[in-house]
Amino acid sequence: MSVTAPKGFVASGGSAGIKAGGVPDVAIVATEDGKAVPAAGVFTANLAAAAPVQVSRLHLELTGGRAAGVILTSGNANAATGEPGRAAAKSLCAQTAQGIGAAPEEILVCQTGLIGIPFPLEEAGPRVRPIVDGRSAAPESAACAARAIMTTDTKPKTALVQADGFRVGAMAKGAAMLAPHMATMLALCTTDAAVDPGTLGSALRAAVDASFNSMTVDGCTSTNDTVLVLASGRAATPSLAALTDALRQACGSLAEQMVDDAEGATKVAHIRVTGAASDGAAHVAARKVADSMLVQCSLNGEDPYWGRVVSELGSAGVAFDMERVSVAYGGVVVCARGVAATHDAAAVAIHMGGRHVEILCDLGLGDGAAAVLGTDLGYGYIDENRTTS
Amino acid sequence: MSVTAPKGFVASGGSAGIKAGGVPDVAIVATEDGKAVPAAGVFTANLAAAAPVQVSRLHLELTGGRAAGVILTSGNANAATGEPGRAAAKSLCAQTAQGIGAAPEEILVCQTGLIGIPFPLEEAGPRVRPIVDGRSAAPESAACAARAIMTTDTKPKTALVQADGFRVGAMAKGAAMLAPHMATMLALCTTDAAVDPGTLGSALRAAVDASFNSMTVDGCTSTNDTVLVLASGRAATPSLAALTDALRQACGSLAEQMVDDAEGATKVAHIRVTGAASDGAAHVAARKVADSMLVQCSLNGEDPYWGRVVSELGSAGVAFDMERVSVAYGGVVVCARGVAATHDAAAVAIHMGGRHVEILCDLGLGDGAAAVLGTDLGYGYIDENRTTS
Repeated sequence: MSVTAPKGFVASGGSAGIKAGGVPDVAIVATEDGKAVPAAGVFTANLAAAAPVQVSRLHLELTGGRAAGVILTSGNANAATGEPGRAAAKSLCAQTAQGIGAAPEEILVCQTGLIGIPFPLEEAGPRVRPIVDGRSAAPESAACAARAIMTTDTKPKTALVQADGFRVGAMAKGAAMLAPHMATMLALCTTDAAVDPGTLGSALRAAVDASFNSMTVDGCTSTNDTVLVLASGRAATPSLAALTDALRQACGSLAEQMVDDAEGATKVAHIRVTGAASDGAAHVAARKVADSMLVQCSLNGEDPYWGRVVSELGSAGVAFDMERVSVAYGGVVVCARGVAATHDAAAVAIHMGGRHVEILCDLGLGDGAAAVLGTDLGYGYIDENRTTS
Repeated sequence: MSVTAPKGFVASGGSAGIKAGGVPDVAIVATEDGKAVPAAGVFTANLAAAAPVQVSRLHLELTGGRAAGVILTSGNANAATGEPGRAAAKSLCAQTAQGIGAAPEEILVCQTGLIGIPFPLEEAGPRVRPIVDGRSAAPESAACAARAIMTTDTKPKTALVQADGFRVGAMAKGAAMLAPHMATMLALCTTDAAVDPGTLGSALRAAVDASFNSMTVDGCTSTNDTVLVLASGRAATPSLAALTDALRQACGSLAEQMVDDAEGATKVAHIRVTGAASDGAAHVAARKVADSMLVQCSLNGEDPYWGRVVSELGSAGVAFDMERVSVAYGGVVVCARGVAATHDAAAVAIHMGGRHVEILCDLGLGDGAAAVLGTDLGYGYIDENRTTS
């Protein structure tokens, strides 16, 4: 299940030789009948946006927010590849379009992998069509597609939300570089809701803000980040709120799976800031704590060193009063009114020893609140990222 | 030599029991005659500023920019310690003042160490006076002072600049959390230049911007960062430019020593951005690259993965055009006009294998240029920071 669970979608996955050893590296998701349906995307804010990001943006513009399918590839980001890179991304769309009987601009493209290496179109191009032709609505096809987009992920990431009268299915890849706007991540949602492209785009942006844009691993923003949604219209017409909520649930689940599977992470950090001057300020402060290498190291060492948390809050650039701040780990207050609080150290130690660590920071200033998902920083992150070979 | 090299200064260092095992943890630097002289400071931008920062700011305000001495302690940051912390910092000043025959507000105070632990004034307080009394102009006294402010530093950090008609001596501590504004670092400069407090402050701020504020280890800004300067007036009256230049040399040397000795670092990264829309934009972009955990991991692995550098430049929030960017490692261009450039991979590998790695990024847009010092990210940083015990 997942992307083929909503009515009207088919999928497939296979190997086109982008990765070595016949590992799956191409996924296709398309409408069952090859007809274009309302579609929307949220893309990386990185000005070094990769070729597939440029091409998908262009295609959505050309069609006024409609798509018949998506091709996703892993193993090469097709970023920093110039005009040949854009030509390669367009060629992938064209070949997918031919297979499903759509126009090239009705196909969107997502790619993930190493930056700066020319995309091997000559080798991979001819191997796309058989993968397109293998598409089906079977759950195994959706599972195969989810596996084909993995890079350093240790497991596929999928979600399925059953809403009132419609469904949302989703799959994603993401490991390091999870950060707001948006991380090295690709996510594709399908829904059978009947909705126009504008409403679909609004719902997706709101859902992304509350999920993918509220997590971080290393604060880096990738060149390829993309979240797409296609809506087949085969089921009910939901309200904007209902659609947003369903997408938020699906994206939220994928975000949790990503952080849980982040490169080398041993902890999932749930950082919540309350009492901020505004929700925006709370979000900035929570992210500052989550992004802190020092806080991340403390999490790795299971050390409830709240001094670093307070130091990050004080340098987050938001309103802050040392005399009003409090910090709690797993519900146990360790710092109150800016100084150490007598507390049950054994209870905190047990909480720090678990995989999920909750840090609640109350700024004592207003009603602003926000939560950010993060990780610890351990040897595994370095092992994963020190060399590309 | 160092802080007692300029005429008119004495120093000492000793143990007051803040650290365990009789390790030196208190340094005193004062004017020879105990008279207040022009002084200036640059302090952390962290709103969770520690008690010593609050007290030093207050004292400089009360005296209109004059000081007779400085007490520096290591082993406890006296941060997040509330009103008792401020009282402790004031008490340290009072005891130092008594020893050298000055008023309490003529003493500045710097403290470094762990955050959130009450300062052990009862134990340390009575042991300050003998250290004050042991002060002298001998080079060994200055060396002893430099050792007493070390925390995770592996060696003391000092500098001496012989300018035209005057000298600047300096000492510092700093290891992790080196970042702009300013890092877990303390630095104290002395000079025998004859200068008023206002000029001294202007010169110090310019020198700090070009040195300590252009280095980064983990992007964290500490609660205690302080740079102070005292001017005895026993030598020549320099121009503002000459004074700034001498202070910049001294601070620049200390900054290089700090990055070179950063917690767990195996590489010193010299990140230079040219061709930016402005110097400010270049500085932001250079810092984004230097702060990137992914770039830092690549440096640790000696992997010239320029794709990550370009990705950071594209998400730095400054003007950027992928088609114009170039990246060079050790003078060898690996990326030109935004795509991979044919290059001498062996030469790059040799450069990456050294302790100093130079990354030059040209944005191809304007005349803005800036340089930032950084480090790699390896196991050592995690080992040093995962627990406080």
